[in-house]
Amino acid sequence: MKICVLPGDGIGVEIIAEAVRVLDALKSDGLKMEMEYAELGGCAVDSTGSPYPEATQKLARAADAVLLGAVGGPKWDVLPRPQRPERGLLGIRKDLNLFANLRPAVLYPELANASSLKPEIVSGLDILIVRELTGDIYFGEPRGIAVEDGKRVGRNTMIYNEDEIRRIGHVAFKSAQKRNKKLCSVDKMNVLETTQLWRDVMIEISSEYPDVELSHMLVDNCAMQLVRAPKQFDVVVTGNMFGDILSDEASMLTGSIGMLPSASLDQNNKGMYEPCHGSAPDIAGKGVANPLATILSAAMMLRYSGNNEAAAVRIEAAVKKVLAAGLRTGDIWEEGTKRVGTREMGDAVIAAL
Amino acid sequence: MKICVLPGDGIGVEIIAEAVRVLDALKSDGLKMEMEYAELGGCAVDSTGSPYPEATQKLARAADAVLLGAVGGPKWDVLPRPQRPERGLLGIRKDLNLFANLRPAVLYPELANASSLKPEIVSGLDILIVRELTGDIYFGEPRGIAVEDGKRVGRNTMIYNEDEIRRIGHVAFKSAQKRNKKLCSVDKMNVLETTQLWRDVMIEISSEYPDVELSHMLVDNCAMQLVRAPKQFDVVVTGNMFGDILSDEASMLTGSIGMLPSASLDQNNKGMYEPCHGSAPDIAGKGVANPLATILSAAMMLRYSGNNEAAAVRIEAAVKKVLAAGLRTGDIWEEGTKRVGTREMGDAVIAAL
Ligand SMILES: CC(C)[C@H](C(=O)O)[C@@H](O)C(=O)O
Ligand SMILES: CC(C)[C@H](C(=O)O)[C@@H](O)C(=O)O
Repeated sequence: MKICVLPGDGIGVEIIAEAVRVLDALKSDGLKMEMEYAELGGCAVDSTGSPYPEATQKLARAADAVLLGAVGGPKWDVLPRPQRPERGLLGIRKDLNLFANLRPAVLYPELANASSLKPEIVSGLDILIVRELTGDIYFGEPRGIAVEDGKRVGRNTMIYNEDEIRRIGHVAFKSAQKRNKKLCSVDKMNVLETTQLWRDVMIEISSEYPDVELSHMLVDNCAMQLVRAPKQFDVVVTGNMFGDILSDEASMLTGSIGMLPSASLDQNNKGMYEPCHGSAPDIAGKGVANPLATILSAAMMLRYSGNNEAAAVRIEAAVKKVLAAGLRTGDIWEEGTKRVGTREMGDAVIAAL
Repeated sequence: MKICVLPGDGIGVEIIAEAVRVLDALKSDGLKMEMEYAELGGCAVDSTGSPYPEATQKLARAADAVLLGAVGGPKWDVLPRPQRPERGLLGIRKDLNLFANLRPAVLYPELANASSLKPEIVSGLDILIVRELTGDIYFGEPRGIAVEDGKRVGRNTMIYNEDEIRRIGHVAFKSAQKRNKKLCSVDKMNVLETTQLWRDVMIEISSEYPDVELSHMLVDNCAMQLVRAPKQFDVVVTGNMFGDILSDEASMLTGSIGMLPSASLDQNNKGMYEPCHGSAPDIAGKGVANPLATILSAAMMLRYSGNNEAAAVRIEAAVKKVLAAGLRTGDIWEEGTKRVGTREMGDAVIAAL
């Protein structure tokens, strides 16, 4: 298995280091992996002028999977748009055709207190958000800011064709089949025709999955229901823009976004794996960042792109053991637990493997 | 003051009746108001074929304010788009140029338990969401579903010009001046050029409000921060689409969306006033709906379009008294309080005036 490792910016470097050490530990147990490093985001802009340079493209395209830390930071926010770190992220998603973004929002029983919601509302929470990642208003044309009749006008285009909707729909239905067989498709069909088509296509393909119960919800209502009663959901599928908002809202319900991994897959289970959280420039370089979301992303990588469920479960079990033992980085620390740094947390996971 | 009353569909009829009775009670105390009724939404489709019929347009245009119950219901969801109740709502907003939607999310201390969030996270919550209401992807052209190269394609257009952004910006800054002088503008400037223009214009006009502290937040982060620490916000300003999602999320933080009013204003403080909740077809006609959001909408009407702060405060104080006395409709009922119906709740508010 060929892995392209992209530490990225901010805490990315530190958290990736721990995930790689965990993978190395499995390697010495016989797991075959080749890792090569490249640059994405702000660091790539600094060294090459582009947030997704050619060398990275080459490596990423040739790999079976990409493991990413995080990109971005205030330092690069002043650059022209094409050079901003986010462009690297959007570029690699599009380039590798990673249309299916899987974002679990899971509450670890040990971290139940971290949630801002009442325990009875979130205990046992286990939602999977399936977000379309290479279409929608993120990539639609025409777009831009122009001067028309002497006024500046900003314009973007929300667009989906039925094939794009169908392929993410199939991923979502299949995910639901492996879980509790409930799929909620989120749209704004009462206002947006694009999402009326979305709903139509979801209904069309649902006949291929008679064992999955499909429901529909408007995006504004979904934003409410996630706060009111999040456990009503099993799998949620939605477009790129709504998925961006709802998946972040859903992760925050757990109170520990530093724990949540994500996978972005193409048609053939090649994927990019990264933590849900960002590059946290404020704590970068201090050795205090939580590496667990990245370590769990590595587990997802072994599961989906490596087709190695056993190795994935082994990592996940090790993380649970470490939590049960009371080890916590600063973001999830509470009275009565032991505060550790990034490196110590990595050490503990490796010891628990 | 000429008021156009639109009961609408579902529970709309029942809750509007109570709000009108409260206004009538003030009338007998000397407040001058003329009320005329018209149809909007599903009921209008049933009787005229259009969700925003001409007779309603005439009355609404001539009035100083519109008081609306709620529109919509499953019965009309099968109709062609132009005849759906929502079209009536979008139609009247656009027709009357009601570009500024003010949605307070306030936690009543008596209802603190109703929230799904921990008390320390939401106690004292008092946010105002200012949502642009006549632009954005809601109204942008081109739009629709077309067949291209043999595939169905759905398309919508997000669009704002600088004047549209500026006028909602001014409303938001002025609202912040009357509150805690903090304004957070929400966009997705790292992806959408439309919202880059949004941010630029907010920064430009901020120099006219040196007493207001302007900050910016990405929409995905805002969806998280509302869950994590909602009390960090005072006034939030955003576009129509993001505002739809975030204002519903924010209202649900209070756990009692049946309590929350809203105002939609034009440039001259003519406005439409309605509860944040919908037409609740499941409980329509049963006399159990909570009329307080509509009664509080009537108070907002007196404040903004009637320029009568005293009368507004009188209604709001009466509502607080009724809550303090332990009266609750089913949606906010809890052990130890007295469950009442729609009519009884109206009676109690009138008695407390
Ligand atoms: C950084 C940004 C472009 C990105 C997105 O909006 O997709 C991020 O918010 C995410 O969710 O991965
Ligand atoms: C009914 C619908 C068209 C409307 C909207 O999306 O604006 C509603 O959700 C609202 O927020 O008032």
